[in-house]
Amino acid sequence: MADRILLAHGSGGKATLDLLREVFYPEFGLTAAEAGDAAVLRAAAGRLAITTDSFVITPLFFPGGDIGKLAFCGTVNDLAAVGAEPVAITAAFIIEEGLEVEVLKKIAKSLGEMARATGIPVVAGDTKVVEKGKADGLFITTTGLGIVPEDIDYNPARIKPGDVLLVSGTIGDHGWCIMALREGIDVGTPVTSDCRPLHRLVGRLAPLRGAVRTVRDATRGGLGAVLNEWALQSGATMIIREAKIPVREEVRGGCRLLGLDPLYLANEGKMVVAVAPEKAEEALTLLREDPDGKDAAIIGEVAAGPARVVMVTEWGTERIVPLPRGEIVPRIC
Amino acid sequence: MADRILLAHGSGGKATLDLLREVFYPEFGLTAAEAGDAAVLRAAAGRLAITTDSFVITPLFFPGGDIGKLAFCGTVNDLAAVGAEPVAITAAFIIEEGLEVEVLKKIAKSLGEMARATGIPVVAGDTKVVEKGKADGLFITTTGLGIVPEDIDYNPARIKPGDVLLVSGTIGDHGWCIMALREGIDVGTPVTSDCRPLHRLVGRLAPLRGAVRTVRDATRGGLGAVLNEWALQSGATMIIREAKIPVREEVRGGCRLLGLDPLYLANEGKMVVAVAPEKAEEALTLLREDPDGKDAAIIGEVAAGPARVVMVTEWGTERIVPLPRGEIVPRIC
Repeated sequence: MADRILLAHGSGGKATLDLLREVFYPEFGLTAAEAGDAAVLRAAAGRLAITTDSFVITPLFFPGGDIGKLAFCGTVNDLAAVGAEPVAITAAFIIEEGLEVEVLKKIAKSLGEMARATGIPVVAGDTKVVEKGKADGLFITTTGLGIVPEDIDYNPARIKPGDVLLVSGTIGDHGWCIMALREGIDVGTPVTSDCRPLHRLVGRLAPLRGAVRTVRDATRGGLGAVLNEWALQSGATMIIREAKIPVREEVRGGCRLLGLDPLYLANEGKMVVAVAPEKAEEALTLLREDPDGKDAAIIGEVAAGPARVVMVTEWGTERIVPLPRGEIVPRIC
Repeated sequence: MADRILLAHGSGGKATLDLLREVFYPEFGLTAAEAGDAAVLRAAAGRLAITTDSFVITPLFFPGGDIGKLAFCGTVNDLAAVGAEPVAITAAFIIEEGLEVEVLKKIAKSLGEMARATGIPVVAGDTKVVEKGKADGLFITTTGLGIVPEDIDYNPARIKPGDVLLVSGTIGDHGWCIMALREGIDVGTPVTSDCRPLHRLVGRLAPLRGAVRTVRDATRGGLGAVLNEWALQSGATMIIREAKIPVREEVRGGCRLLGLDPLYLANEGKMVVAVAPEKAEEALTLLREDPDGKDAAIIGEVAAGPARVVMVTEWGTERIVPLPRGEIVPRIC
């Protein structure tokens, strides 16, 4: 096989089949005999969750992950956010002509490793090749399918005044990591992306049932975007306390340097949770028992009032946290 | 809203929400309140089919369709090919900065119209924006979810010697249409892409049950690629008769002019079917009763023997039809 991707690899003919056999099938545990245009799987009756995301991150590799791992985790986390148990994912690759086959292999391997580690298989896929200069190395679109248990409903419209807001760990790690990598910034200890699957962490909250109002992974647009969407969807005010929000020192310092706000930086391994007040401490304990939630914290509460987000600063003043505007860190996921 | 797509439209913040509200939600019948990271739907117990495809066609608009209609039909047809009844689709958009918002609206509308016309809703989506020069206008990745009735199994391994091969209409229309458009070729009547959803057409074959061995939509790589894959998957010889294969005169003439083979040209509205011999005529009648199958034809049969495709030419000689090699028409879907 060639060292670099050719247009022929996207033809649907011999070269495509070679690419699938050489790069994708071994990593995803598929064979040519099984591979059809659609995968067929058996699922229990019930509510299905489906979610899709394109990943266009640059660079393709970063401390703590790469576009393959990111595409897997991002989609699994979107399923987790509706309380679904992930069943399977699909992966569609848009490849720029000239990409090194070794690069593609590393990324397929990383995606395949996540699938094996979590037991969530990649069941269908697609490969397209576009001419050099018509894409940027590689874009991956993953779609996830999951089952939502009958007693789980994490619709954000369920948020009520009095609810408590939690975050599962430090915010802004992924966004800062990519930013620092691109800009060649070094502020003490390098920050690693928090990219990881969170379905097990969210699953820990299932015993609290109806007390868990809603869950969201705070990716593009960060914690600030999630809380603003919740405010719009519930018609309530989200109050957060700056002093309670866990932010790594390096991220805080870096943001100050560049005039960024950690509230708007992307996360790829953090969940925001709204819980009924009487179960807030229990939720916090459940999250902290998990290595992926060890830095979980209660960061605020929901109040009756206009649909907006208010932050009580470290100095006790209040400021509105608007929906992020403009581009914060482009191509972050 | 701006006339052209900005990087900010991919930020996950205010501009992204504006884009969703202005361009996508109205066409897909969604509201901001409902829109979460994953859609939840109720499905009957049974076998689920899932399929994904990225669409990178150039140009974005062509006679008979555009990338939006194509992305919808391509995915619905992949579901149809495993005998599934389509339930829902998702659509992820990778947009190049600078794309005219009007162009995006036309494409979203076209996709939305297909969803309304077929009753197959778009239930989840994603929007990413990459810098000018890092994509080519627009790429769409659609994923389809369907239910496969318990008595349907269209696995190509079920193909047996003696089976009859059918095609649901003229081949090469989509491939030739795009080729002629790109090259500015005019050979008499212009050919329109055959882009259309085929789940109803395939559904007509359901009463034949086990007699229908397998079904495939002959997209990238054309009829030649499908038959070669079937040969590999079943270990049998696919014999086709050139004189029986329906090809439009304009396509035949154009291919002769450019040295192309219609067998390898992409279709976006044609199914290839393998049927037990005793039900072949019935299958042909069922297909022809549908406007989308009016030119259906029996084109050959399956023989015991090595895994390969043999064409009996119009002159009675035989030639091997190999898997297509190299690029035929790049960026065809």
